[in-house]
Amino acid sequence: MKNKIIAEYIGTALLLAVVTGSGIMGEALGASNAAVALLGNSIATGCGLYVLITLLAPISGAHFNPVVSIMFWRAGALNVQALFGYVTAQIIGAVSGVWVTHVMFAMPMIQASTKPRHGLGIWVSELVAALVLLSVIRLGVKYANEKVAMLVALTVTAGYWFTSSTFFANPAVTLARSLTNTFVGIHPADVLGFVSAQLVAILLISILIKVESK
Amino acid sequence: MKNKIIAEYIGTALLLAVVTGSGIMGEALGASNAAVALLGNSIATGCGLYVLITLLAPISGAHFNPVVSIMFWRAGALNVQALFGYVTAQIIGAVSGVWVTHVMFAMPMIQASTKPRHGLGIWVSELVAALVLLSVIRLGVKYANEKVAMLVALTVTAGYWFTSSTFFANPAVTLARSLTNTFVGIHPADVLGFVSAQLVAILLISILIKVESK
Amino acid sequence: MKNKIIAEYIGTALLLAVVTGSGIMGEALGASNAAVALLGNSIATGCGLYVLITLLAPISGAHFNPVVSIMFWRAGALNVQALFGYVTAQIIGAVSGVWVTHVMFAMPMIQASTKPRHGLGIWVSELVAALVLLSVIRLGVKYANEKVAMLVALTVTAGYWFTSSTFFANPAVTLARSLTNTFVGIHPADVLGFVSAQLVAILLISILIKVESK
Amino acid sequence: MKNKIIAEYIGTALLLAVVTGSGIMGEALGASNAAVALLGNSIATGCGLYVLITLLAPISGAHFNPVVSIMFWRAGALNVQALFGYVTAQIIGAVSGVWVTHVMFAMPMIQASTKPRHGLGIWVSELVAALVLLSVIRLGVKYANEKVAMLVALTVTAGYWFTSSTFFANPAVTLARSLTNTFVGIHPADVLGFVSAQLVAILLISILIKVESK
Repeated sequence: MKNKIIAEYIGTALLLAVVTGSGIMGEALGASNAAVALLGNSIATGCGLYVLITLLAPISGAHFNPVVSIMFWRAGALNVQALFGYVTAQIIGAVSGVWVTHVMFAMPMIQASTKPRHGLGIWVSELVAALVLLSVIRLGVKYANEKVAMLVALTVTAGYWFTSSTFFANPAVTLARSLTNTFVGIHPADVLGFVSAQLVAILLISILIKVESK
Repeated sequence: MKNKIIAEYIGTALLLAVVTGSGIMGEALGASNAAVALLGNSIATGCGLYVLITLLAPISGAHFNPVVSIMFWRAGALNVQALFGYVTAQIIGAVSGVWVTHVMFAMPMIQASTKPRHGLGIWVSELVAALVLLSVIRLGVKYANEKVAMLVALTVTAGYWFTSSTFFANPAVTLARSLTNTFVGIHPADVLGFVSAQLVAILLISILIKVESK
Repeated sequence: MKNKIIAEYIGTALLLAVVTGSGIMGEALGASNAAVALLGNSIATGCGLYVLITLLAPISGAHFNPVVSIMFWRAGALNVQALFGYVTAQIIGAVSGVWVTHVMFAMPMIQASTKPRHGLGIWVSELVAALVLLSVIRLGVKYANEKVAMLVALTVTAGYWFTSSTFFANPAVTLARSLTNTFVGIHPADVLGFVSAQLVAILLISILIKVESK
Repeated sequence: MKNKIIAEYIGTALLLAVVTGSGIMGEALGASNAAVALLGNSIATGCGLYVLITLLAPISGAHFNPVVSIMFWRAGALNVQALFGYVTAQIIGAVSGVWVTHVMFAMPMIQASTKPRHGLGIWVSELVAALVLLSVIRLGVKYANEKVAMLVALTVTAGYWFTSSTFFANPAVTLARSLTNTFVGIHPADVLGFVSAQLVAILLISILIKVESK
């Protein structure tokens, strides 16, 4: 179990470093055109996710995401204690990743985002994002298990572009991104809306799985 | 059959969400340079297609496209009833995808495009696009069956760039894109020209297959 | 043999359509920043090459390039008659691809490029490009035969960026690109310099192979 | 051994040609937006690395990097003599690659960079970069050996974006990049800081491996 917790911690930390760092880099270099920043941000995140999932899945399953861990817990693949350990590691890892990135870019370590992200459209978007992510993982494990790393990576790269919320789909990521006042930030007051949408998604998926298995 | 219809519906809806949403995002962020918008649009669509085809092909074959379903129907892989079900699911799915995207981006749900897309060059382009897509699928199934998802995804990413019509190659997609007044829209009056070119392509492919099999 | 010649013709035509069309699109949409045009151009070409090589290699070997065919002829894989057929199909195919693209973009079909591409640096660049391409194919066939399509595609995508000549590395492509006065054109007077560099590369590779096999 | 040394020499030379050349191209074409230059630079480097590692790993292991060779030497996979040969080939190869690129772009062959790259953030970034690269290789060899080329390529593409130092992670690359006054250069006075961070990384990895194997 210790190795699993470490893998979740390091994987989520590096995921956040990639997400946050590439956002900072894109904004710094491409201020005149935010689409270029999003391109760098989405390509880097996809590349990073593929690497992290491929290497850490053999250790911990490479969830890096509380709603993913909840889905596997409901499926009986994690017990409550493990779920608690995973989620804790993910949250602490996510925050660590943001902080390391601030150090790398010589920014104040402790920040709070001022970027508003709320509204009905954005909440629907975040619900769609989490539903898509969880479905991709579930169907991927079932139909194309050896391709899950690629499927998740490409889903997130596409997701940054086709959802108005830019596909957070992850409560640990959402929380940690409220602590960076950069391209990928989210105002702390808007975290609750995002996490709620993500939790509704896991609820809907659970109902869907029950209906399907009947 | 019910699962197949649901897979075609959801797959086409998500395909249109990726196509439309990434177009809106690119245009919003990169207004000063439409090439960046097309880059985001084409990369997101390729990523999305790879995921959707990989995951839904085991269920329905992952056509998401009436001319593809017609090709498989002519090849004897679908009966008339199934063809009718597939095409209906694709059209309704495509429209649903556009509408969900409008909701996500807080836009009016019901729109009509004002973007003109017509002229001999564009119709030739759309004919080439549909011929290429159908040939890639046909040769892919024959010579590299386990790579079809990747082949179709990369064909469409390249197609956005090398055809003047930006590679619709799909009547359901064409129809649905007339209902969004955004980057990827097409004026309703121009739908007929595109769909005609796509139907000529399926006719030409059918003749080619007959000649070849003699 | 007839099928092989058709495959070389169609493959080279589509390769040129992707190269030329994506260049026109990039220049049209991204006039303010040629790097974005090159990005679209190089990504589209890589995607297109992967698809064309994967699908047509089982038929003709997917050379699409006279110096590649010469290398395989020297290795004994093609006889002189086949070499002549391949090269003819590649040249006519390449020109056809450029012309179809002009039709798609509603441009005059017959054009001549006015873009100068010459100088010692560019000739060295084209020599390096052809040496790299031929070595990748040779080593790829030897060490990673099932990955040759991916290796060639990624080599060309990278090649567009790291060589000052933008990696033509193909006499049929060079000739055909002199017939389009667009982003990817080359002044007809500069064709000889490029083709000479490419022929020097095939000569050097032949010597290298002889030395190596001793 | 001779073939291994040649493979390390040519591989590192081509790696530097891709890194330096794509940087020059991006800066030349996309001066108005450095993020586009970095996009071309990072995508080209990833594509090039995948090709070079796939083709040369069967010959030399495709290190192209002194700290990677040191890691394999400590693991017992290289003896001291081989390590010395590898590192020498990598350094001479890296410099050769930069010089060939200058010739291709018709620039003075001998240059020195004036681009400052120093500060605590950048050194931490370079330490993180080298730690990530070495961990990816180590875990990749262990858990996904046939995917190492892809894993390293995508790690570096993402790394260009998420680290403030743009992921040199390689003493031979660092040294050679001090000899080009272009997009990817580093002031000679800043080489020591980068190389020190990279050597600390190999030290930390060695300690980690010892702790882990207890």
